[in-house]
Amino acid sequence: MKILFANPNTTVAVTDRIAAVARAAVSPGTEIIAVTARHGVPYIATRAEAVIGAAQTLDLLADHATGCDVAVVAAFADPGVGGARELLSIPVIGMAEAAMLTACMLGRRFSIVTFATAMEPWYRECVDYNGLSGRLASIRCVTGTFRDINTVQEEMRDALIDACRQAVEQDEADVVILGGAPLAGLAGKMADRVPVPLVDGVAAAARQAEVLASLHPRKATAGSFRRPDPKPITGVSAALKQLFSRQ
Amino acid sequence: MKILFANPNTTVAVTDRIAAVARAAVSPGTEIIAVTARHGVPYIATRAEAVIGAAQTLDLLADHATGCDVAVVAAFADPGVGGARELLSIPVIGMAEAAMLTACMLGRRFSIVTFATAMEPWYRECVDYNGLSGRLASIRCVTGTFRDINTVQEEMRDALIDACRQAVEQDEADVVILGGAPLAGLAGKMADRVPVPLVDGVAAAARQAEVLASLHPRKATAGSFRRPDPKPITGVSAALKQLFSRQ
Amino acid sequence: MKILFANPNTTVAVTDRIAAVARAAVSPGTEIIAVTARHGVPYIATRAEAVIGAAQTLDLLADHATGCDVAVVAAFADPGVGGARELLSIPVIGMAEAAMLTACMLGRRFSIVTFATAMEPWYRECVDYNGLSGRLASIRCVTGTFRDINTVQEEMRDALIDACRQAVEQDEADVVILGGAPLAGLAGKMADRVPVPLVDGVAAAARQAEVLASLHPRKATAGSFRRPDPKPITGVSAALKQLFSRQ
Amino acid sequence: MKILFANPNTTVAVTDRIAAVARAAVSPGTEIIAVTARHGVPYIATRAEAVIGAAQTLDLLADHATGCDVAVVAAFADPGVGGARELLSIPVIGMAEAAMLTACMLGRRFSIVTFATAMEPWYRECVDYNGLSGRLASIRCVTGTFRDINTVQEEMRDALIDACRQAVEQDEADVVILGGAPLAGLAGKMADRVPVPLVDGVAAAARQAEVLASLHPRKATAGSFRRPDPKPITGVSAALKQLFSRQ
Amino acid sequence: MKILFANPNTTVAVTDRIAAVARAAVSPGTEIIAVTARHGVPYIATRAEAVIGAAQTLDLLADHATGCDVAVVAAFADPGVGGARELLSIPVIGMAEAAMLTACMLGRRFSIVTFATAMEPWYRECVDYNGLSGRLASIRCVTGTFRDINTVQEEMRDALIDACRQAVEQDEADVVILGGAPLAGLAGKMADRVPVPLVDGVAAAARQAEVLASLHPRKATAGSFRRPDPKPITGVSAALKQLFSRQ
Amino acid sequence: MKILFANPNTTVAVTDRIAAVARAAVSPGTEIIAVTARHGVPYIATRAEAVIGAAQTLDLLADHATGCDVAVVAAFADPGVGGARELLSIPVIGMAEAAMLTACMLGRRFSIVTFATAMEPWYRECVDYNGLSGRLASIRCVTGTFRDINTVQEEMRDALIDACRQAVEQDEADVVILGGAPLAGLAGKMADRVPVPLVDGVAAAARQAEVLASLHPRKATAGSFRRPDPKPITGVSAALKQLFSRQ
Repeated sequence: MKILFANPNTTVAVTDRIAAVARAAVSPGTEIIAVTARHGVPYIATRAEAVIGAAQTLDLLADHATGCDVAVVAAFADPGVGGARELLSIPVIGMAEAAMLTACMLGRRFSIVTFATAMEPWYRECVDYNGLSGRLASIRCVTGTFRDINTVQEEMRDALIDACRQAVEQDEADVVILGGAPLAGLAGKMADRVPVPLVDGVAAAARQAEVLASLHPRKATAGSFRRPDPKPITGVSAALKQLFSRQ
Repeated sequence: MKILFANPNTTVAVTDRIAAVARAAVSPGTEIIAVTARHGVPYIATRAEAVIGAAQTLDLLADHATGCDVAVVAAFADPGVGGARELLSIPVIGMAEAAMLTACMLGRRFSIVTFATAMEPWYRECVDYNGLSGRLASIRCVTGTFRDINTVQEEMRDALIDACRQAVEQDEADVVILGGAPLAGLAGKMADRVPVPLVDGVAAAARQAEVLASLHPRKATAGSFRRPDPKPITGVSAALKQLFSRQ
Repeated sequence: MKILFANPNTTVAVTDRIAAVARAAVSPGTEIIAVTARHGVPYIATRAEAVIGAAQTLDLLADHATGCDVAVVAAFADPGVGGARELLSIPVIGMAEAAMLTACMLGRRFSIVTFATAMEPWYRECVDYNGLSGRLASIRCVTGTFRDINTVQEEMRDALIDACRQAVEQDEADVVILGGAPLAGLAGKMADRVPVPLVDGVAAAARQAEVLASLHPRKATAGSFRRPDPKPITGVSAALKQLFSRQ
Repeated sequence: MKILFANPNTTVAVTDRIAAVARAAVSPGTEIIAVTARHGVPYIATRAEAVIGAAQTLDLLADHATGCDVAVVAAFADPGVGGARELLSIPVIGMAEAAMLTACMLGRRFSIVTFATAMEPWYRECVDYNGLSGRLASIRCVTGTFRDINTVQEEMRDALIDACRQAVEQDEADVVILGGAPLAGLAGKMADRVPVPLVDGVAAAARQAEVLASLHPRKATAGSFRRPDPKPITGVSAALKQLFSRQ
Repeated sequence: MKILFANPNTTVAVTDRIAAVARAAVSPGTEIIAVTARHGVPYIATRAEAVIGAAQTLDLLADHATGCDVAVVAAFADPGVGGARELLSIPVIGMAEAAMLTACMLGRRFSIVTFATAMEPWYRECVDYNGLSGRLASIRCVTGTFRDINTVQEEMRDALIDACRQAVEQDEADVVILGGAPLAGLAGKMADRVPVPLVDGVAAAARQAEVLASLHPRKATAGSFRRPDPKPITGVSAALKQLFSRQ
Repeated sequence: MKILFANPNTTVAVTDRIAAVARAAVSPGTEIIAVTARHGVPYIATRAEAVIGAAQTLDLLADHATGCDVAVVAAFADPGVGGARELLSIPVIGMAEAAMLTACMLGRRFSIVTFATAMEPWYRECVDYNGLSGRLASIRCVTGTFRDINTVQEEMRDALIDACRQAVEQDEADVVILGGAPLAGLAGKMADRVPVPLVDGVAAAARQAEVLASLHPRKATAGSFRRPDPKPITGVSAALKQLFSRQ
């Protein structure tokens, strides 16, 4: 089985981290292909950046999905996942949705803990979009700055642990999701310091991708995720143009 | 006062129609500037197409907003409006949000009537996103094909009137919105054949844009619509790059 | 264009303030007619007082709406607006609904800041009634007393600014509405001290009234805001009796 | 124990029917006092009429509540009940709220069946106001005309039974409320022809009034139903003026 | 009239307290029969314990409901009430639902105050299950330990009063429910120290049981509370087996 | 990895079917242990039967969970899953929750199709309990009788396909879940006759169980799914008693 992780950010080091965590999470024999946006921003944190990232998601999937069994939008609030699900024949999931749905099986209310306050409103819109606001305990963003997106999880570990504990004690979370691809792999290292289950978005997405691929769902030919009618399109890559125009 | 209508579709004739209806709607002295996406699809109707359109929205605003007092995302489900609201210093509204909020002042429950079933799920997500599902009576899509997006309102008028009446009689709508820029200007011609107020998205958006500009709201420097922190970005126009990178 | 502001409170000085702020807000040529309840309480702040005020609203509209193009219920939680919308042939809007719907175009979550704690539950019911609780960040009421309803905005300015800032910082408001007609005109004076857009209820209502009048919506003859069937009624003014009994 | 039924409609025959059904429902020794609005409309069916009725409710309670243990707003969508609950020292309940809360103990989803389509939107707002929309299966209004409000239950019995059955079969109601005071006493006569429990609004309200009186709840001195601060008021009866102005 | 209180806990002293409070609450001539679970836990406080308690509820009702007019599940979050309502021919209500619905007639928002933090999530699920989350101000659990479930109300009185006051002042409760059968009878003793109405779950349930019995609702033969089709069942008492298998 | 499927129904043939479908769904090396309730009903279809089933779930898990990595409540509306999640150290999921959360990754709105109308209300409560009503398109129950629970999927296949198609065409489902363990394995056989993805509850649960086990979530020691405090309990098996009483 081949899983495509499409990182709509331009930071290759984050993609590498995602790939490593995903490889550690999946079953033997599952192959992880991780690709990085050619364009856009180093790390999406706002609605405006997500607009650019969503288009990158489609671009990456058009270029790399052939031969894969399932694809993952590898940025936490899932830019472009709905459009990708329409266009592609294989299942497409978002990292946030995979993490949240996994969390729902581990407790009644989940919190999302992340490392930058700018992301809170964008994440909240993602929770709303998924219809899961009733399951959300809180979104907690660690304040303070960090030197490097590649070392943010080491720099902020203690602050993240504090935020997780506050989510449990003050917000009544039963489970905590660590949000944002730069935190991939951190959950395992913090588990003994937080008193509820932690969900790693990348590991959850990798495993949920395996689930979807293994269930072999058919591509919808009706309903709102059937393939859009073919349309002329300009200003996109040849591969994406092909996706939009094929019958 | 100058209002910018940014049409994220590539069909210039639709932009012309929008401009004409907007000009007829606004106060004397208000100037309408209407621009058309350089790239993308002729008419956005699905989530995937909206991903491409959202990026076009940002591109158009970066190119044309200077000197304008307010901007309108001139496609019905408002692709990119949240991101645009972050980036720009002037108010930005969506055509669907303007139409829905106007409808809320004319009745308790509104229906949206449009001309293609593919748009129903995308429109529904837009209603949800605006937190207005509790005010929605129904979305009714006229079935059947049309020859030309530029004449769809003439071709489908009787079917649209029937759909409006069904929205009132069967779905308990107090007011009906005609959705989709290609229907701009039609509401006035149908008013005597539908027994509740009709809202024209373009006219409502033009007038609401005037409201926002006249109230001179300050640009947020806090909250979720403050300008994003400056970031490097690639693969976008120089003007948009400038928007993302400015302090 | 003539806009009728019907103040269901008995304080003429508040009506005068409303009229002045409305005149400053509207387009050239728009005429503001502002009338004061003959009976009732100086300033509505509770559900019981709103019952009396709602009847005053109908009374004022019956007496003064003839010749007007649109009417505004000029008390913040809109007593009687639904009934007025049924009875009258012209559009009728409430000051709170106009403020809230305007705020929705300026941000995702709005707070309402006002000057008396008694109003909080009544305001909350108004938000609920409009189906906008999902967009509400908070209602913040400044505590403390004031000497005179006519000078409340000067007496409490600093406390109101603090409340606005808390709404942004603690409640995650993107925009703040100053609630209550006695605060009319204050938003402009506070804009540089609050980091998000402020909405003045009277200015927003005046402008939204212009929008509705300019769109020339037809009077519903079906749906829940069609005119009630004529009925005999006693104990009301001749003008209101006429409204209830006409075909 | 004395229960005051305040009928905000002017039809004495409906008040008489209410009194008779209430007397048959209550415990031995409970006294029913039923009073009729001096002014207003024969039968409230719209929002506008409810505005007038709400003021009548306060008027009736001011005149007649002294010496009573509990009061009932005896019109189905409870005009003025919130304000009355603030003003009075005794518990005040609405006929619709009593019926709905009683229905909730008899099943998961309730329908309301009534005899005039004009009442549907007003009833729906009442369900929403009570936060019970999640328990509502449907509101079904029998169409067709009737000769006399006093004989409507006899004239429309078969049509009402059909509507109740449709609520069960098509809308998945577990229990059906007969809405509107003119239908008081009908539930008992229809029970063997509808396959789920029926709730008579008047009987339910009479019994719930007994419950509240027997529990001797204290008058709130905090929270949103504490007595409003005393205020000058004009244009109301001396008794109501007294209620508004007392400490 | 005979009311059956089925306590799914095994603590006879709590049953005795329930019976005493219920007898003091009901009308003259109403008989209270109170029975205690043969098996299970001394006091249900978690979802797992509620699973066991729900089965005890059915068992107790099967053994003792014959000859009774109405039954009450006498543990606060109502374990097994839905199933019991299907199986029995007489009305069955839960103590929590009776308390909450009674509270809804005394104010807009209610809080639940109880004596053990473990119960908070289970109580919250009960509020959700009843569709009343929109009416909930808060659930406040007094922390700290107590020596004996039979004297918990005396041991914790001051702490409970503080929690009630905080519910009013901080959470905007209009009315407070004392949750949990061990607190039965306490509301009356605290009324002068809490500024809003207090609801005693046992007294409310006893009175609501009288209401339901007095209304003589028919047993549903359609809808979701009709009797389940007869089925073979093993591992339950002969009486319960009889309930499941009868036509 | 060992997955325990606990079937709270007494029909061994259904357990066998579950085991076969689960074995076909999981990864190589994953072991399926499937156990059948010793007591209860052949097939749970109502709330009352689910009360009995929930206790059977705890009983089965107490007896068989030792040595397993994850457990599945193998009846569609998940009787007892919340309590089991508290008591056990390993993850516990319900078949319905696993199916619904999987469906959420395949589309926006899901329908549940099943084979007996009695199950509709119980299923709906399960959807509500999981906070997923906003994602539900419909629950459709095929009417008509079947001879044998073991052959129901063959007997009703055409009717189930029709129901699936109606869910897509009339209810706007993007994905359909076949509900109820007796339908296990049917989804694969129907895929080419229904135009959207189908979710098999057993296969989804088996795969989701693997996900949870592979993520090695820690047992909560805080939050609402921490182990209940040890309590004396009677009337349950020695193994279950042990679970309730251990530290």
